[in-house]
Amino acid sequence: MRTVNLAEKFGRFRERWQPKIAGEINDSYVKLVKFAGDFVWHHHDREDELFLVLGGTMRMRYREDGREVEEMVGPGEFIIIPHGMEHCPASATPDEEVQVMLLEPKTTLNTGNVQNERTRPVLDRI
Amino acid sequence: MRTVNLAEKFGRFRERWQPKIAGEINDSYVKLVKFAGDFVWHHHDREDELFLVLGGTMRMRYREDGREVEEMVGPGEFIIIPHGMEHCPASATPDEEVQVMLLEPKTTLNTGNVQNERTRPVLDRI
Repeated sequence: MRTVNLAEKFGRFRERWQPKIAGEINDSYVKLVKFAGDFVWHHHDREDELFLVLGGTMRMRYREDGREVEEMVGPGEFIIIPHGMEHCPASATPDEEVQVMLLEPKTTLNTGNVQNERTRPVLDRI
Repeated sequence: MRTVNLAEKFGRFRERWQPKIAGEINDSYVKLVKFAGDFVWHHHDREDELFLVLGGTMRMRYREDGREVEEMVGPGEFIIIPHGMEHCPASATPDEEVQVMLLEPKTTLNTGNVQNERTRPVLDRI
């Protein structure tokens, strides 16, 4: 079976802020992640990132032309953050869990140019 | 607004078998397509393709190790067809419309190695 059921995959883990690899396409991975609360402001020098929300509502802040922008991204919506853009993913409310499918090059480190306790250099497959 | 609402985008067109570009990420496009019935058997020499089903049920046939495989892919499910693999997307039933988000390199021609009346060398943005 090549078919991947997203709900079934999300049911297999509970850890937050730890993306899991659910597929491989060309030089990119499809990753699944759960989170609540705020991440860290960061950017990726070379990699664009796609965030497709599947559950909950994500609050994505980013900096564009010197100002900070905030968008709410709900289920069935995606946002692409181009390389070089500072951004900070979060859940819309502190306690609401968000479920997101990410698509990004295999070289992408989750915290981009920042290294902290949230950095995950090695990801599990699911 | 960078956020893309998939249902809203699908509501903007009715044509079938004509993928629309809904996003650009690294060297790939996010495309949206509606279809019913059978496509054509084809492969892509270099490009892997991701099909994420958002409405209806897709019947994906492919050839692997000399045999033909068929998988039903429903809403919330995706399938990745690696480069070189012969495949033929279709709707599960002839009249049921399927709505799919595709992710594939910008170089990908929809009919791959085949040229016929379904070939769409130039795609609209939506």
